[in-house]
Amino acid sequence: MTTIGFIGLGIMGAPMADHLVNAGHKVVTHTHKSPVPNDLKTKGVEELASLKAVAEASDVVIMIVPDTPQVEAVLFADDGIASGLSAGKLVIDMSSISPIDTKAFAEKVAALGCDYVDAPVSGGEVGAKAASLTIMVGATDEGFARAKPLFDLMGKNITHVGPIGAGQTTKVANQIIVALNIEAVAEALLFASKAGADPAKVREALMGGFASSKVLEIHAERMINRTFDPGFRIRLHQKDLNLALQNAKEMGISLPNTATAQELFNSCASHGGADDDHSGLVKALERMANHKVAD
Amino acid sequence: MTTIGFIGLGIMGAPMADHLVNAGHKVVTHTHKSPVPNDLKTKGVEELASLKAVAEASDVVIMIVPDTPQVEAVLFADDGIASGLSAGKLVIDMSSISPIDTKAFAEKVAALGCDYVDAPVSGGEVGAKAASLTIMVGATDEGFARAKPLFDLMGKNITHVGPIGAGQTTKVANQIIVALNIEAVAEALLFASKAGADPAKVREALMGGFASSKVLEIHAERMINRTFDPGFRIRLHQKDLNLALQNAKEMGISLPNTATAQELFNSCASHGGADDDHSGLVKALERMANHKVAD
Repeated sequence: MTTIGFIGLGIMGAPMADHLVNAGHKVVTHTHKSPVPNDLKTKGVEELASLKAVAEASDVVIMIVPDTPQVEAVLFADDGIASGLSAGKLVIDMSSISPIDTKAFAEKVAALGCDYVDAPVSGGEVGAKAASLTIMVGATDEGFARAKPLFDLMGKNITHVGPIGAGQTTKVANQIIVALNIEAVAEALLFASKAGADPAKVREALMGGFASSKVLEIHAERMINRTFDPGFRIRLHQKDLNLALQNAKEMGISLPNTATAQELFNSCASHGGADDDHSGLVKALERMANHKVAD
Repeated sequence: MTTIGFIGLGIMGAPMADHLVNAGHKVVTHTHKSPVPNDLKTKGVEELASLKAVAEASDVVIMIVPDTPQVEAVLFADDGIASGLSAGKLVIDMSSISPIDTKAFAEKVAALGCDYVDAPVSGGEVGAKAASLTIMVGATDEGFARAKPLFDLMGKNITHVGPIGAGQTTKVANQIIVALNIEAVAEALLFASKAGADPAKVREALMGGFASSKVLEIHAERMINRTFDPGFRIRLHQKDLNLALQNAKEMGISLPNTATAQELFNSCASHGGADDDHSGLVKALERMANHKVAD
């Protein structure tokens, strides 16, 4: 049994913490906005007085919070996690945040004698509940070995991609490809529809060839059937592409199509679509063209 | 046995015609630049004096030539195919050309009492030789029924997508998605590599998730292993994206990422890469970033 400080009992975090408790671990937390969910409280998840107290009480601290500033605040605010760390503890960040900032956070945590593992996930609420998350891990070999038994309780496809930061880097790469594959399918279906072809038949004809992708399988169908309930919300993908573009700028690389995809997401948000599924990106192209893929 | 006029005995056309001859059909042709290949001559493929004579002698005319202007010239030049057509003949264009021009050509052919089928292919030289081409067909039901037995001799995945023009539309949609999926993977791998992650491990971690695609499987590996032998040449993909952008402009739709991908292909061509495989698109992004995905 490990004592785990778990910060961020939201839509993703609550079911993840539940799996840890069910496996016999002790989970402590300090909540920011909402109280500890009742079912977790019943199972013994304990609220402590501060993040500092959580770090002091725990062997391992796991965070899953919205974005880079929240991770920074959880770790380094007054009475934050860092203030309660002592040598030999392990910090695992399962949020999706900046790879560059991750490396800086890990250095400050290392200065306290603690290992740091970045382990963002994909698979959403469904994957969190089913303990079938994909977990992309950046870590030292020691850090990975120590975190792995906990990851096994929460996920299925667990890859140690590389050194600290590589997990976040992989998650950003994933979100770049997914956004641009959605944009690709949107351009192609719009072209086909405007030219008078049936987009559903075009999609069928392209499946299995070089154009085939998970996005052609799933998101193209949403565009054709006009089912834009999330899924994965445009506002979350905007956050991820912001990470991509900010880090690209800091590293000195150009991501022209990621930039365009972000502008298209921005346009969707301007038209009230921030909570649409990310396949709703097609609507921005449709507005530009004054033509819909399907009605 | 059908007498087939076959125009365009090039890298693709020669093996395709060979399959027709082997199935017992009579093939006649009129060549423009090169003479009839010797093996086809031996098998009885006959060169006639003009395109007009080919049309007069044939029940079905098949064309596979480089681009829209060549199809137009074959059909409508003085002594071209159209001048030898009489009611009831069938014209099949297996070239990859403009969907909009295709519809105009078909109308002119229909005015002569002949059916027109557009049936561009994918699968390349390998698919042509193995008779395993993917064939995307735009046709009337009657036209498709008549052409299908011939397609069965040349291809495997044969889809009647819709009315005349729908075959070319589907081919363009395919080429948009393939180019943009290549561009997506190039941006993501460049990001990952510059951030210090191993692009091969990132690729592995992403396979099977929402970022997965045929392009992530095949073209990402070429970018990582630096194997840019075609494959499918950048100069051909430039031609296809030109069709996409020209037709989009004529139809009044915007394809922002297709436009960027074309500019990146143009940059590759400027650096001597027109005959690289299209995965070589990554080099244009690498030059912009002054960083390579791999060495």
